[in-house]
Amino acid sequence: MSISERLKSLRSEMCRHNIEAYIVPTCDFHGSEEIGGYFKTRQYISGFTGSAGTAVITQKEALLWTDGRYFLQAEAQLKGSEFILMKSGQPKVPTVKQYLKSKIKKGYVVGFDGRMMMASEAEDISSIDGVKINYSVDLIGAIWEDRPELPCTQIWELPESASGEPYLKKIKRIRKEMSKSEADILLLTSLEEIAWTLNLRANDIACTPVFMSYMIITKNDSILFVHKQALSDEIREKLKRDGVTVRAYNEIYDALEQMENRTVWIDKETANCNVIKSISEQNKMLNQFTPVLAMKAVKNRTEIRNMRQAHLMDGVAMTKFIYWLKSNVGKIPMTEISLGEKLEEFRSAAAECFENEPERIANRASYLGPSFPPIVGYNEHGAIVHYSATQETNEEIKPEGMVLIDSGGHYMEGTTDVTRTISLGSVSEKMKEMYTAVLRGNLNLAAAVFKEGCSGVSLDYIARKPLWDKGLDYNHGTGHGVGYVLNVHELPNGIRYRILPNLQLNAVLEPGMITSNEPGIYLEGEFGIRIENLILCVKKKSNEYGTFLGFETLTLIPFDKELINLDDMTTEEQKLLKKYNDHVYKKLSPFLTEEESVWLKNNCRLD
Amino acid sequence: MSISERLKSLRSEMCRHNIEAYIVPTCDFHGSEEIGGYFKTRQYISGFTGSAGTAVITQKEALLWTDGRYFLQAEAQLKGSEFILMKSGQPKVPTVKQYLKSKIKKGYVVGFDGRMMMASEAEDISSIDGVKINYSVDLIGAIWEDRPELPCTQIWELPESASGEPYLKKIKRIRKEMSKSEADILLLTSLEEIAWTLNLRANDIACTPVFMSYMIITKNDSILFVHKQALSDEIREKLKRDGVTVRAYNEIYDALEQMENRTVWIDKETANCNVIKSISEQNKMLNQFTPVLAMKAVKNRTEIRNMRQAHLMDGVAMTKFIYWLKSNVGKIPMTEISLGEKLEEFRSAAAECFENEPERIANRASYLGPSFPPIVGYNEHGAIVHYSATQETNEEIKPEGMVLIDSGGHYMEGTTDVTRTISLGSVSEKMKEMYTAVLRGNLNLAAAVFKEGCSGVSLDYIARKPLWDKGLDYNHGTGHGVGYVLNVHELPNGIRYRILPNLQLNAVLEPGMITSNEPGIYLEGEFGIRIENLILCVKKKSNEYGTFLGFETLTLIPFDKELINLDDMTTEEQKLLKKYNDHVYKKLSPFLTEEESVWLKNNCRLD
Repeated sequence: MSISERLKSLRSEMCRHNIEAYIVPTCDFHGSEEIGGYFKTRQYISGFTGSAGTAVITQKEALLWTDGRYFLQAEAQLKGSEFILMKSGQPKVPTVKQYLKSKIKKGYVVGFDGRMMMASEAEDISSIDGVKINYSVDLIGAIWEDRPELPCTQIWELPESASGEPYLKKIKRIRKEMSKSEADILLLTSLEEIAWTLNLRANDIACTPVFMSYMIITKNDSILFVHKQALSDEIREKLKRDGVTVRAYNEIYDALEQMENRTVWIDKETANCNVIKSISEQNKMLNQFTPVLAMKAVKNRTEIRNMRQAHLMDGVAMTKFIYWLKSNVGKIPMTEISLGEKLEEFRSAAAECFENEPERIANRASYLGPSFPPIVGYNEHGAIVHYSATQETNEEIKPEGMVLIDSGGHYMEGTTDVTRTISLGSVSEKMKEMYTAVLRGNLNLAAAVFKEGCSGVSLDYIARKPLWDKGLDYNHGTGHGVGYVLNVHELPNGIRYRILPNLQLNAVLEPGMITSNEPGIYLEGEFGIRIENLILCVKKKSNEYGTFLGFETLTLIPFDKELINLDDMTTEEQKLLKKYNDHVYKKLSPFLTEEESVWLKNNCRLD
Repeated sequence: MSISERLKSLRSEMCRHNIEAYIVPTCDFHGSEEIGGYFKTRQYISGFTGSAGTAVITQKEALLWTDGRYFLQAEAQLKGSEFILMKSGQPKVPTVKQYLKSKIKKGYVVGFDGRMMMASEAEDISSIDGVKINYSVDLIGAIWEDRPELPCTQIWELPESASGEPYLKKIKRIRKEMSKSEADILLLTSLEEIAWTLNLRANDIACTPVFMSYMIITKNDSILFVHKQALSDEIREKLKRDGVTVRAYNEIYDALEQMENRTVWIDKETANCNVIKSISEQNKMLNQFTPVLAMKAVKNRTEIRNMRQAHLMDGVAMTKFIYWLKSNVGKIPMTEISLGEKLEEFRSAAAECFENEPERIANRASYLGPSFPPIVGYNEHGAIVHYSATQETNEEIKPEGMVLIDSGGHYMEGTTDVTRTISLGSVSEKMKEMYTAVLRGNLNLAAAVFKEGCSGVSLDYIARKPLWDKGLDYNHGTGHGVGYVLNVHELPNGIRYRILPNLQLNAVLEPGMITSNEPGIYLEGEFGIRIENLILCVKKKSNEYGTFLGFETLTLIPFDKELINLDDMTTEEQKLLKKYNDHVYKKLSPFLTEEESVWLKNNCRLD
């Protein structure tokens, strides 16, 4: 069906259901960051393939909202269709809510599939004066003939050597937090939180090893709602033995409807509208981040030890890759897309050469796959922050300029996320000036010593100072939390300069939290630079002035010497660079060939 | 009457009113920071004279809560009385609310004078399960025979050459904000906000030139509730001509009771409990900072020009004083208290020598008095952050060690607040090391360039870095907003590393805001160092990366060369110091004697 035929079918369904405006958001049932094919309803109805956007269809109009990352792409993909592009955040462009407010007259009905809209967003829409909402109409489902199946991959167990804590202990800790907050019931709706709690993983979402599920924890009971066929007999037996009840995924709604007079702890950012509607008003709702979010963010000793190992493997892979790239560019054909694929080979191969290491986690190959689709941006493509090469844009890599590569892997030992900007031949003074400024921010942030009580808001300035002093900036956060074989973007820790209105998102940094440290600079039409390491928050010292924290950099990948102007760096910054270089060389060289090792040694020497 | 007699009388009043527990906070009717004699009920009942504390009296117990600044003083002053000292913030010490919660049985009555407790605090107490509150019992008033009168000083007008904006224009701007927030009525309860709005001042509170009043602004009306005898005929006429209705101070309660079905904008942090109780529930309350708070914080061009002038006069006074001190210490007797008095003479005299300057604001002597009682702390007294010399503690100043002096003045041209730590003879290497670390933080913060959108939370690290790197810290904020001939401590701008739970208190910095920059270090029993300048937020540049802000340092007083280790400073920091020194010398020298000028020149030379 063409887009116009799809719109026609949708509008006739809207008539049948007396719906005036139908909203199609980009979301799965759990507010996940990435979504599977089953959930790509907005893409189906509009033809726009970007990762963010909301379509609104009335009998007269079809509109698509998306943000600045996607204006060009959306414009191209909507061309020729009836869809009007609404550029979110631009002056005079109304939000979805403002648009509906202006159109909808009293008693008119707005519809959407409430399972695919988070409760907080649905409440915002339903607060429009005079609006009536139909929460349970999956009209795209009704017209989409070859819709993909709901994902249901095999669930596997993360061994204790990887998780560091049996799941029953985790549940015990969760119950302690529930009791402190006087909650009778904790409803987990975030897939990452359920996977973390149960030490289980699967592949229902690309690059995020989770499985479709809900979980209810009470003082005495734990109930997992999951596609039963995703569970092996072994895991099913274990859960049963441990007293975890398994129920069918869709039974969550019935289970919630039966609750009465309880205090229910939920997080409306990951609970969909229909889940919340199923909880009767006789219950008291405690709407805030779940205790799992905070617990998951603070890595335990096993996770930390493993993460160091994951970064060693990742560092070997990336460093071998960089050497290969620098040695072969201009000699063999390569493109942005092929570099991404090549890097994947290096990650897989590097993990294998650790198979005989004593630290290796048994029974499984260490490398599990990419933690997100790699960003490979050559020269001016590097300046597009969320660039993803397509067959149309795919650029040939030549022995000149720079390539920005942002990639990461899931290993049994943890998850990595790293960006390096790599010179491929002659580079300009401007490139060096910019690279050095970004590097100084990265090094200084990693070396910061700060009092307990600081959030990332207190530290963001350190990473940006070299750029701000020049009147430059990067239009993204400096850091995000990172999950352990979960989502590579994890709340609530982050590093940014603005205080977010949701106070819980400005989390105080705690030892054990892992955050990215990724300043950058993007010169439109010229080039982009980003340098990203993961940093572990650690305790430095306690004395009569309080407790002081700092960071340990986990990432072990050299910075590109060709791009560094030592003269732009203070003595202190040069010392930090030398310390990192020495550390990288010492850790990586045992796993490199002699050629690679010689190159690395030279790259790490300050001269 | 002795304290025990007072307690006896109070308890018999409590019996008469069926009150089980009576709370005596430290507060006036407007939540002011400083309070006049009439309001010192807690001091009357307990004998404790500190500026912060809450007394709770039951038939069986008498307790006094105060914070760490006052533990020693309270212990001494409560000694021999029945009062138990409750050290707020110490482990296992309950809060007032927790204490009441544990004692009060269902239906028991807690009483207080609701005019002297802010609404937010009263709501906290009344949220205790089963408690009954008697909001309108001034039992201290009933027993206090020689209670001072309510303050009622003469109100005077701040000329437009000082305020920079006619008050009717201010009211117009306020109404615009009211309309944006859909408020029908704005109730101003903060004395500083009313004084700012009307460009009027008085002396009802020591060091804070305000007058007892309330103000109501509606779309068409402005009503000032004030002691009518405080108004001159001239001001009364002017208000009348401009359509501002004047009513008696106490009529506010009646006026509020008559409001119906309106949206009332109030700030429960400065509105007392009885004011809020007077507003019928038929009205809708909008409880947040008033628009005046934000408008007042951003100084206009006249205020900024004047503030520069005020700091020039203040700089001349302080510099002459420092020279006098260094020249005379050990030669003539001096103490902490006498130094404070001497400094006051210098401020007064310096302002006079500007009488013939063209910038002078006509009709009045420029210097109005201190903006707060000066802190003069010699050697180990410098380590007590809120030290205030008394006859008992008053230390003789000798030609050795250091003295910390924190003081400020109100001028017609604005308000100053400055701290200098001054060497008086031989100083130790440790003193120099510490002074230099504090100075580096001060200089680097003043030189920061940052993006629009930053709050003080984003910048606090800069001031603390030199100390945090050494495992040291100071236990106070780095900066507070400063009023214009109003309170020297002004919300909502501040510089601190913790994000405050009240989001409005983490204000984004805007050009025109004036904030203090006052890092310090306090070594108990040894010495204290603080260096405080006022910094004006200014726009630096706008380009495709956004708008960049920075600071202009207003304070013009030399740092003490004897205490600076240039070797501890980076080249960049030495440049900042040189730039400040050159600026100070250039601005001040025309107003100094030759001797003073020679000394200043030498002090400002880096060698």
